[in-house]
Amino acid sequence: MGSKSKRRNAAINRRAKKSGLPPGTLIHIGEKREEAVRITYMDYDDHSFQEKQGVSVEECFPFKHTDTVTWINIDGIDEIPIIEKIGKAYDLHPLILEDIVTAGQRPKFDNYDQYVYIVLKMLTYNQTTLSVESEQISIVFGSNFVISFQEDVGDIWDPIRDRIRLAKGRVRKMGADYLAYSLIDAIVDGYFGILEKIGERIEGLEDELIEHPSESLLRQIHSLKREMMSLRRSIWPLRELISVMQRDESPLISSPTRVYLRDVYDHTIQIIDAIEGFRDIVSGMLDVYLSSISNRTNAIMKVLTMIATIFIPLTFVAGVYGMNFKHMPEIRWRWGYPAVLLLMGSVAGVMITYFRRKKWL
Amino acid sequence: MGSKSKRRNAAINRRAKKSGLPPGTLIHIGEKREEAVRITYMDYDDHSFQEKQGVSVEECFPFKHTDTVTWINIDGIDEIPIIEKIGKAYDLHPLILEDIVTAGQRPKFDNYDQYVYIVLKMLTYNQTTLSVESEQISIVFGSNFVISFQEDVGDIWDPIRDRIRLAKGRVRKMGADYLAYSLIDAIVDGYFGILEKIGERIEGLEDELIEHPSESLLRQIHSLKREMMSLRRSIWPLRELISVMQRDESPLISSPTRVYLRDVYDHTIQIIDAIEGFRDIVSGMLDVYLSSISNRTNAIMKVLTMIATIFIPLTFVAGVYGMNFKHMPEIRWRWGYPAVLLLMGSVAGVMITYFRRKKWL
Amino acid sequence: MGSKSKRRNAAINRRAKKSGLPPGTLIHIGEKREEAVRITYMDYDDHSFQEKQGVSVEECFPFKHTDTVTWINIDGIDEIPIIEKIGKAYDLHPLILEDIVTAGQRPKFDNYDQYVYIVLKMLTYNQTTLSVESEQISIVFGSNFVISFQEDVGDIWDPIRDRIRLAKGRVRKMGADYLAYSLIDAIVDGYFGILEKIGERIEGLEDELIEHPSESLLRQIHSLKREMMSLRRSIWPLRELISVMQRDESPLISSPTRVYLRDVYDHTIQIIDAIEGFRDIVSGMLDVYLSSISNRTNAIMKVLTMIATIFIPLTFVAGVYGMNFKHMPEIRWRWGYPAVLLLMGSVAGVMITYFRRKKWL
Amino acid sequence: MGSKSKRRNAAINRRAKKSGLPPGTLIHIGEKREEAVRITYMDYDDHSFQEKQGVSVEECFPFKHTDTVTWINIDGIDEIPIIEKIGKAYDLHPLILEDIVTAGQRPKFDNYDQYVYIVLKMLTYNQTTLSVESEQISIVFGSNFVISFQEDVGDIWDPIRDRIRLAKGRVRKMGADYLAYSLIDAIVDGYFGILEKIGERIEGLEDELIEHPSESLLRQIHSLKREMMSLRRSIWPLRELISVMQRDESPLISSPTRVYLRDVYDHTIQIIDAIEGFRDIVSGMLDVYLSSISNRTNAIMKVLTMIATIFIPLTFVAGVYGMNFKHMPEIRWRWGYPAVLLLMGSVAGVMITYFRRKKWL
Amino acid sequence: MGSKSKRRNAAINRRAKKSGLPPGTLIHIGEKREEAVRITYMDYDDHSFQEKQGVSVEECFPFKHTDTVTWINIDGIDEIPIIEKIGKAYDLHPLILEDIVTAGQRPKFDNYDQYVYIVLKMLTYNQTTLSVESEQISIVFGSNFVISFQEDVGDIWDPIRDRIRLAKGRVRKMGADYLAYSLIDAIVDGYFGILEKIGERIEGLEDELIEHPSESLLRQIHSLKREMMSLRRSIWPLRELISVMQRDESPLISSPTRVYLRDVYDHTIQIIDAIEGFRDIVSGMLDVYLSSISNRTNAIMKVLTMIATIFIPLTFVAGVYGMNFKHMPEIRWRWGYPAVLLLMGSVAGVMITYFRRKKWL
Repeated sequence: MGSKSKRRNAAINRRAKKSGLPPGTLIHIGEKREEAVRITYMDYDDHSFQEKQGVSVEECFPFKHTDTVTWINIDGIDEIPIIEKIGKAYDLHPLILEDIVTAGQRPKFDNYDQYVYIVLKMLTYNQTTLSVESEQISIVFGSNFVISFQEDVGDIWDPIRDRIRLAKGRVRKMGADYLAYSLIDAIVDGYFGILEKIGERIEGLEDELIEHPSESLLRQIHSLKREMMSLRRSIWPLRELISVMQRDESPLISSPTRVYLRDVYDHTIQIIDAIEGFRDIVSGMLDVYLSSISNRTNAIMKVLTMIATIFIPLTFVAGVYGMNFKHMPEIRWRWGYPAVLLLMGSVAGVMITYFRRKKWL
Repeated sequence: MGSKSKRRNAAINRRAKKSGLPPGTLIHIGEKREEAVRITYMDYDDHSFQEKQGVSVEECFPFKHTDTVTWINIDGIDEIPIIEKIGKAYDLHPLILEDIVTAGQRPKFDNYDQYVYIVLKMLTYNQTTLSVESEQISIVFGSNFVISFQEDVGDIWDPIRDRIRLAKGRVRKMGADYLAYSLIDAIVDGYFGILEKIGERIEGLEDELIEHPSESLLRQIHSLKREMMSLRRSIWPLRELISVMQRDESPLISSPTRVYLRDVYDHTIQIIDAIEGFRDIVSGMLDVYLSSISNRTNAIMKVLTMIATIFIPLTFVAGVYGMNFKHMPEIRWRWGYPAVLLLMGSVAGVMITYFRRKKWL
Repeated sequence: MGSKSKRRNAAINRRAKKSGLPPGTLIHIGEKREEAVRITYMDYDDHSFQEKQGVSVEECFPFKHTDTVTWINIDGIDEIPIIEKIGKAYDLHPLILEDIVTAGQRPKFDNYDQYVYIVLKMLTYNQTTLSVESEQISIVFGSNFVISFQEDVGDIWDPIRDRIRLAKGRVRKMGADYLAYSLIDAIVDGYFGILEKIGERIEGLEDELIEHPSESLLRQIHSLKREMMSLRRSIWPLRELISVMQRDESPLISSPTRVYLRDVYDHTIQIIDAIEGFRDIVSGMLDVYLSSISNRTNAIMKVLTMIATIFIPLTFVAGVYGMNFKHMPEIRWRWGYPAVLLLMGSVAGVMITYFRRKKWL
Repeated sequence: MGSKSKRRNAAINRRAKKSGLPPGTLIHIGEKREEAVRITYMDYDDHSFQEKQGVSVEECFPFKHTDTVTWINIDGIDEIPIIEKIGKAYDLHPLILEDIVTAGQRPKFDNYDQYVYIVLKMLTYNQTTLSVESEQISIVFGSNFVISFQEDVGDIWDPIRDRIRLAKGRVRKMGADYLAYSLIDAIVDGYFGILEKIGERIEGLEDELIEHPSESLLRQIHSLKREMMSLRRSIWPLRELISVMQRDESPLISSPTRVYLRDVYDHTIQIIDAIEGFRDIVSGMLDVYLSSISNRTNAIMKVLTMIATIFIPLTFVAGVYGMNFKHMPEIRWRWGYPAVLLLMGSVAGVMITYFRRKKWL
Repeated sequence: MGSKSKRRNAAINRRAKKSGLPPGTLIHIGEKREEAVRITYMDYDDHSFQEKQGVSVEECFPFKHTDTVTWINIDGIDEIPIIEKIGKAYDLHPLILEDIVTAGQRPKFDNYDQYVYIVLKMLTYNQTTLSVESEQISIVFGSNFVISFQEDVGDIWDPIRDRIRLAKGRVRKMGADYLAYSLIDAIVDGYFGILEKIGERIEGLEDELIEHPSESLLRQIHSLKREMMSLRRSIWPLRELISVMQRDESPLISSPTRVYLRDVYDHTIQIIDAIEGFRDIVSGMLDVYLSSISNRTNAIMKVLTMIATIFIPLTFVAGVYGMNFKHMPEIRWRWGYPAVLLLMGSVAGVMITYFRRKKWL
């Protein structure tokens, strides 16, 4: 549990440290990686295509003035000078650069007339901690370029790269806006994979709930519920982002691309729906767990109290005939002992019958 | 309980598998059926009518250029080539085709100028699992055609077919939009049947709740509550769909049809209201169950504790006179034993009176 | 409890039976009455007035073309041919006729340019079942006519009839819209009577709650809470209806009448406020009931456990001196017995003091 | 508790009695006072000022046609003829007159072009019943007059009267709208006094909660919570009223006055915020109370059960050596008795140690 | 707990005391400080810069007519004459002056055409009471001046002062609106520091919750939850403030500054998100605490009841053979005693086995 809040705190603490600096100051906020920043470009139109990996940032600039679509992908946001050079070359607003290097942004869409800035969260499911982790993706696109920034090297866009290389699908025929859409679409599609994993975990917990309800299970359900709420909160702004982007009147987004954005929007709604559904299931599991635990405790207490209750009057009877009075006529009777045993038996019998009739047993 | 989440997961898992493919890729997502796809067309106007069942997809295309209304119905969405041919013939957007073959869409209304695309859920009540199942219905209509896609062969539209054949009602006199409205209306009408079944089940549970409250009943009520929430979530977008369709400014939807759409809208609201009402009833049942269980446990504990409490002091008294002290004057008294019995009787009497007066008995 | 859901189900079941019929099909849905349909008309303007009761439907039609305001009131909606004749004479849309004969409509306001259609619920409080029952009222009005449909003969509009007959108030001086407003106003005023009855019932339950909290009371509070929720749900759309009607730009509704509609709107809000207030009171009653029950159980358990706890150590001491060891010096002591009694007394005293100090007694 | 719902019911019952009367019928609804209605006027502009108390209603009318601002204040709304005369003189709509004499209106702002009608609630805190009571204030103002109606004689506006008399502040320099604003502002300022009293009561309850949690305290907290909810509901419409008034385009409200209205609006929001805060505190108190009660019960049960559990096995051992078997070798042993006592001591010791280690003691 | 409500009450009580005074009356409401008011000005444009600390208020006025940006900062709002002089010099509306000296304002943005008025809350975390404290900041800015009012001397703006002095960042190149933005930005940045502290406290509580759950911890969690709610309520209006400011059409706010305001807006949303997340965590902690407490109590009760239940039947058996009947054959048997011991052992064994099998042990 602590790890969750620690991670959240990490993001806040980093921000807190930046306070006092002028807006637009570039300081990398996020985990420092060991690998160097890796820059790749692809330049294409319907007829031509060229690609180069591991280039220096300056190699990408000449494409700025061509009509072909250029996709510059930067893996790693921790080398400020590179980000600054790109900012200068493409004339990006200092606040954009600041957002790019500051992990922990909320998904948003900002229109700066000459280009559009999008921040997203790419989610991955950590199989070890059974929790969802997020990485910040920034996308800037103008009329003929798309620049994408990832915190770390990722393979989520490989299918798009293949489609560009092989001129499959529509991507080579359409503009930078369609490429940007494709990148977003790939990320949103990735969310379904996360949901799949969470769904499996819920299924597992459901089975365990019926077979071995335990306190550690309760803790897991609670933590899953919280995970659900936090996931919902991080996907909710995405819905707004895409809705704003689709309705934005920027000439950078062509009308055919808007149709595709509507499709991503539908997917986002589906994902939110699925999360809501999961949350209901988890809430239901909590209810079932709590009432099953309370039922079990009740059952134990009931049976035990029954036993106690039947024997207490019997013990009293035995106590009575254990008294040492000199003048106790029953004591001397020939059949006194069996009579008392019989009496005890009948008392027990009557009580059991009474409990049975009241359906307490 | 597991089955529910398994079904939901199925939809997500299938989507998850598609990630990485370009948008508009046609892969059938849903349960594979054994029967072949079955195509039927009806072509009519006020004066003429023709119908043919089990045709090939190409037989339907000539009607595209006539002024009569053509209704092409396709039962089965698992043969991609057929869907592709229709898409080509009627010039449908690739995303529509993708949505048609991808079960698990959220109800929506998309206006593509030349035609309109609608996705709906047809609900059926499975009497065996006592749960609601859903099938995806896609409807595309333009100025003179309606194409409807069902996951499986269904008879919900038979009354409409009869009305077209017999020229009953308004349907032959009006355009494709009215036919589309009729199809939607039939599906929404079907929801009332579902509500009827759920209502019966709730009634049954209510009766059982009063007669035999049990843990298995609790589980059923919980699962019913969840079903209610999931049903509400799947009908809610329908309300929006119809509201958007009614207010849409597309020339494809004529003003008289809009009046009818308002009627369907009212039905949708009624259905949502009924579900809300059911949910309240189910919540109330949960409250009643919980408090009746807790009342019963309390009653048992109370009576039993009473018995124990009355006998514990008596047993103590018996214990005192069971002590073996040499010098216990009472032991030797002639009426010691009856006096002690009397003492015990009075102690018990006083306690019972006290409990009675405090209304604890 | 069952009766409530049975009634609700009745409405849904009837709808469910209609599915498959073309829209606008007239089938009476509702309880079949024994009496014949009763038609009454009033025709008036500032100077003239005529009224006739128990007329045939055809007698009303000539007024259609006069400038005077005609109010046709129809008690009973189960004779389809009468409804159809009126529909034809006044050129009403088939969907209106369908709604009129289909009990269970949601309150709504539909503007059809030439006339306006309003559905409302008239509520009555059934003193026997202590529940609110509703009857559907339909009102159609045009520039010079008002047609009102009631499920059964009612006297709620008698004061309005008197005002028309005696030319009291503004009604004779104003148009059909003001008459329609008066009818709605009378129905909404009737709601205050319902609230009065519910208020009395709540007061009664409050008094009983303090004097005799019991499980049957709990059931009543639960059912009252549900009644409150269902009442709120059926009055909520009325608020919207009147708000839409007041803001509607139809020339059928004159500006002075709009001022009066604002007044009805205020009343509706007051009613909803009162219901919310009742709901809070009922929720509060539930809380008080639950905590008072739990307090009582706690009190019992506490006192009883105290008694048990004090005697258990004492019984142990008695048990010790009831052992039959040959060598127990205390047994033979002259003051052994009184000493032990003293010991027991002190143990009890110490425990009681301890409990007192801890405020457990 | 009953008194609260009785008061609420009173308002509804009175309304219920009015049903059947034509709208605009003047019947005083509210508590009948013993004093006569008292009319006061003030007439002023920047340079002139005159004031007269206890005048007849007719004495006020001549001011209608002067340019000076006239403030007519009427204490008491139970003499219908006076209200009617004012209505006639200032040409007020019958619905306004009806609202003025009908206590229990919801706060609202109605614009009638020639004048503006405002209903408000003045709140006072009854120190005896510890509850908030409300009085209805109606204000009508036109271009050169303000007429205010109070249910009873009040002194809340005395500071405004002083400011007019002494020409302090802006009021003499500005129009009728500013005077109306001043009256509203005084009422809203009075709410802070109510909040102050409630705040003190909450503080008192908080202190008591820590020192003497009791069932009667619980009842008080519950009733306070309900009071909070009802207060919130009666202040909420005020917020809307002032917001509507500020944004209204009526030429009666001058632009400088709008700035002041924005200020009252801010106060209203502050009041609602404070109520929300109080509600949170009260909810928190309930939670703390409930968990402290449950903690105490748990503590008692735990200690008592401990005692019982330690002595039960010991009593069993004593019982064993109290058996009368002829052949019990231990009985005859020289050190049997001390050995058994030692055994008992060790059993008790072991159990206490075990409980300690488990942190149950 | 009391301290919290006492502080809140303080604000309300002060307001309550002001009621009756004309609007715009200047009375300092807030805590009286001991230090004198301290005035500082900075006057700068791109090329020139001058600064003076501890000046008299009159020294600031000449800058009003220069084109350079003047920032007048006033630490302390308790000397009314100073505020009045500034109000006169810069022609500020009396309501602004009133708001400036009245601590406890809700954050808001008011546009007065010639200048803009902003109220904010600066939050600081009191390490001793572990609670958040707030100070009111007022900012007035026009085309060439910014006047800021703090309740007390603060160092939160020192980085901005440095940037102005050293001409770092954009601030010297831009207008008064950018300076105002910088001031707001610094305050909002400060909130991250508060969140950091709260996050640490939550982490600490989480660790303690696992190791030493106690009633005092519960109280802390409850108070933290309330703190969270109150924090959320005080930051929520800030979000609105900045959103209104960004969308305001005032020419005082330049388009580049609007871009920066969008950035602050994003930060506000992030802060609200973080608070929501904290609230979820705290709620989850409460749930975990409650269920862990109830689990522990259950465990104790279960084990103890087990022990009692096993020994009660055994004690009964011992009691039977402690009876003094003359004719009890078993008593005389040679192996009676061992046989009974064996019997007792088996009864205990059977019961333990039964409990084990039922998983109650």
